[in-house]
Amino acid sequence: MKRVLPPNVSAAQFKDALADFAKAIGSDWVLSSDEDIATYSDIYNPGPEEEWLPSAAVAPGSVEEVQEVVRIANKYKTPLWTVARGKNLGYGTAAPRLPGSIVLDMGRMKKIRMVDEELGYCVIEPGVSFFDLYEHLQKMGGKLMMSVPGNGWGSVMGNALDHGVGYTPYGLHASKICGMEVVMPDGGMLRTGMGAMEGNHAAHLFPFNYGPTWDQMFTQSNLGIVCSMGLWLMPTPDSSLQLTIDIPKAEDIGWVIDTLTPLKVSGLIDQNVFIPSWLGKISVIGTRKDFWDKPSAIPEWRVNELLKQYKLGYWQVSMRLYGEVDVVKAKAEVVKTAFRKQTDQPIDELWWHKGDPTNVMDTTLGVPTAVPLQMGAWVGGRSAHLGFSPVVPAQSSHVLGQLKRSQELYAKYDVDFYASFTIGGRFVNNINMLMFDRDKPKDVQNIKDLFDELIVVTKEAGYGEYRTHLNWMDEVAQTFDYGDNAMTRYNEIVKDALDPNGILSPGKQGVWPRAYRQFARR
Amino acid sequence: MKRVLPPNVSAAQFKDALADFAKAIGSDWVLSSDEDIATYSDIYNPGPEEEWLPSAAVAPGSVEEVQEVVRIANKYKTPLWTVARGKNLGYGTAAPRLPGSIVLDMGRMKKIRMVDEELGYCVIEPGVSFFDLYEHLQKMGGKLMMSVPGNGWGSVMGNALDHGVGYTPYGLHASKICGMEVVMPDGGMLRTGMGAMEGNHAAHLFPFNYGPTWDQMFTQSNLGIVCSMGLWLMPTPDSSLQLTIDIPKAEDIGWVIDTLTPLKVSGLIDQNVFIPSWLGKISVIGTRKDFWDKPSAIPEWRVNELLKQYKLGYWQVSMRLYGEVDVVKAKAEVVKTAFRKQTDQPIDELWWHKGDPTNVMDTTLGVPTAVPLQMGAWVGGRSAHLGFSPVVPAQSSHVLGQLKRSQELYAKYDVDFYASFTIGGRFVNNINMLMFDRDKPKDVQNIKDLFDELIVVTKEAGYGEYRTHLNWMDEVAQTFDYGDNAMTRYNEIVKDALDPNGILSPGKQGVWPRAYRQFARR
Repeated sequence: MKRVLPPNVSAAQFKDALADFAKAIGSDWVLSSDEDIATYSDIYNPGPEEEWLPSAAVAPGSVEEVQEVVRIANKYKTPLWTVARGKNLGYGTAAPRLPGSIVLDMGRMKKIRMVDEELGYCVIEPGVSFFDLYEHLQKMGGKLMMSVPGNGWGSVMGNALDHGVGYTPYGLHASKICGMEVVMPDGGMLRTGMGAMEGNHAAHLFPFNYGPTWDQMFTQSNLGIVCSMGLWLMPTPDSSLQLTIDIPKAEDIGWVIDTLTPLKVSGLIDQNVFIPSWLGKISVIGTRKDFWDKPSAIPEWRVNELLKQYKLGYWQVSMRLYGEVDVVKAKAEVVKTAFRKQTDQPIDELWWHKGDPTNVMDTTLGVPTAVPLQMGAWVGGRSAHLGFSPVVPAQSSHVLGQLKRSQELYAKYDVDFYASFTIGGRFVNNINMLMFDRDKPKDVQNIKDLFDELIVVTKEAGYGEYRTHLNWMDEVAQTFDYGDNAMTRYNEIVKDALDPNGILSPGKQGVWPRAYRQFARR
Repeated sequence: MKRVLPPNVSAAQFKDALADFAKAIGSDWVLSSDEDIATYSDIYNPGPEEEWLPSAAVAPGSVEEVQEVVRIANKYKTPLWTVARGKNLGYGTAAPRLPGSIVLDMGRMKKIRMVDEELGYCVIEPGVSFFDLYEHLQKMGGKLMMSVPGNGWGSVMGNALDHGVGYTPYGLHASKICGMEVVMPDGGMLRTGMGAMEGNHAAHLFPFNYGPTWDQMFTQSNLGIVCSMGLWLMPTPDSSLQLTIDIPKAEDIGWVIDTLTPLKVSGLIDQNVFIPSWLGKISVIGTRKDFWDKPSAIPEWRVNELLKQYKLGYWQVSMRLYGEVDVVKAKAEVVKTAFRKQTDQPIDELWWHKGDPTNVMDTTLGVPTAVPLQMGAWVGGRSAHLGFSPVVPAQSSHVLGQLKRSQELYAKYDVDFYASFTIGGRFVNNINMLMFDRDKPKDVQNIKDLFDELIVVTKEAGYGEYRTHLNWMDEVAQTFDYGDNAMTRYNEIVKDALDPNGILSPGKQGVWPRAYRQFARR
């Protein structure tokens, strides 16, 4: 395997750095064999895995060890790429943006430091997975409910910090963060919010600082290493009702959005409503070759045939209401009345009451699952996926425009279309999945070209991505072009002030420290 | 009147600076007469008005003029103290923390740039008052409802930026900010969130940046001058039900909080519930001398007599539910059942339906009012008030502890006790009003001594203030002492990087730029 050292670090210096790391955290936790490095490469990379190779990985076991690692990294000027559990599939997994960076794997720090069932929050470390926290809460008696993303095998903290989305009333995970403990680039410690006071009882309850509020500055960020954070959890409701409706045609998404948005903005629906296109359902039934035997994209007539055969709509809308039975019933009437104005499609009702069992697919009840990863098998071979993820206003005009733009580009590049729209409030997260077989270089290049053009065309129309893969972090940052890229410029002023050696996650979301700015693609 | 120049600025330089300001924004908007300066002093200051005197004020009329003002201030190194409308009563009004600063009065910029009734938000400038926005929304047909603080005569933006609180479901005003346009200390422009992309349609809809999210860094902050911001507004509900209950005794606040918090955390009550003590009601009926003729604090036996005479509880709890009639009815049953477990006190019900008139006291329906300012007249003379405002967890043990500590200190200093608790979620904002006659220097000193001790005793118990008056900005910052005051230290690293000349609001919330750090009380 190709070996890459950090820029401007000699092999001898690198060896000394690793020796110092080993002294600080134990040699078992300094990982630099070929096998180790392969573990931290991007197994979903659209291109060779060697594209984003780390030089090594270090896995500290405590806050003090993280501080030591940061001090050593400053001494040797070895950049660190922080990951929680490194499961950010479709956006780069554990691999660093700057090749040769040392992956700072926080996965060993996996304490659930506390759960307060009355006030509804937990304090967790980066290594805590959705499954870990779920089990813990269930063992305590299930008074609190999590919010989980579609694929729940990553880190609770990592997902929240990367602006991940779930499908409960707490689905905007980053907005439920309250109070962090952060190792800063100089090795110092910072606690945000009320926790900036030693021993403050409201450290994870009050969402503001006295003075500027920092929490969100550490999301999608390279300004510090979050070692623990408070996360609000929802009390498990007395009951919950799921209303499911199949929506026949692609363009129907327009009235669906215009029906849901007022209910979401008024707060009647407090859940993030997930609306996946047909491929989401079909990919659980079989893989691509079961439905279409040509390499070209499945044509419209065949899609319609499949929808008919499997009795599926182009979209499926599943809404969930939570609370006391009578409140849920009253809310359900409002929702049904709103939909009845638009469609005669049957609305399936499924009640759940506290204490009832849940199943593996109940992400809207906070049950973590890895089933949606099956979708990865769709194209066959050593399959992988990428997400193209713009945010659009929650209105039909914007959603239909985005749908049309994406569909046209997918058609141009002859790729199967799969999109979901998740209403998170006044906006929609649109995730366009791009699936490819990593062993077909032509297909990979085609997907990359499609991605490039999606960014450009979407930006021209006035929309931006909320998150992106390593390979496009700079390109997407460049689309935020107001005031000659003022946001990147001011981010970098703050970055240089807090991290003069540029050791923390250089290039994260297109923010480059002075020391490595020449590596930015601008 | 005493005249104070900015530190290290000669009279000649100051004159040149004023001339440059006049050239940039018009001489009418450079204010430096004795009368002007008196206008920008703190009329509620606990001490002489001359304590926090500005050297002048400038009032730009556009974003470009703000940029010009900042460039000139950098040239002459004249610090600017930014205020929206300067109505921050009880926390310093328009006066600067560093005497001799030039007040940057943003009040002339008062455009409501847009209101989107479908997606529920507005884009406003700093000078827009609660009354301005209320009138505007009413003229449009009242589809959207505001959230207003107790005293609504200030700036909507200024209140949100200072973490002000209202009593609707949108009552945590700062958390409804989405997308800002900011003049930075170097005169450059920054737009936050999706607005960092020129022409992005989701600029005021999606609450995160691509990369670190800055919005909250500009609250209680001196890192930039917010020239406009998006603020989410709640759709006016179909109906609303107010449930009011008098709570007899002081210690009853314990079970009240423990009854309300689970309903608030579960989301059944989405409003911020305001619970004022008896003085709030009595001060609307008359002034102090009507009830007690001695200078000493009203004793407990007399308080009990008054409560009996006026048929008041020690506390009054008014809860409001919002939404479709049947949903509100179902929620009300849950609330009433919870209270019935604790008390037989009657629960007054008052329905409101869309289109019904509102009255001047309907702050919970978003109607701005200045009536609570009457409370200022309580002590008589040239009366003023201060707020001591710690945040505590929304649990009886914490609330009762804070109540006892405050009551004991008020008694020690022989001052009438008045407090309110507002449940904002998992926490409670406790506002302790301190009322005094500014023309009685001994009383003023007594209030200051009480305030000093409140800070110390509250900090020792593990709680911090969320906001404070100019006079204690440093002292409260010092209570945030984790890691040798790490928060202030890192705030100042960022401050110095973005504002090397230290011209924006030095000392705001205890954050001092290098140029003036010697003025910090540490």
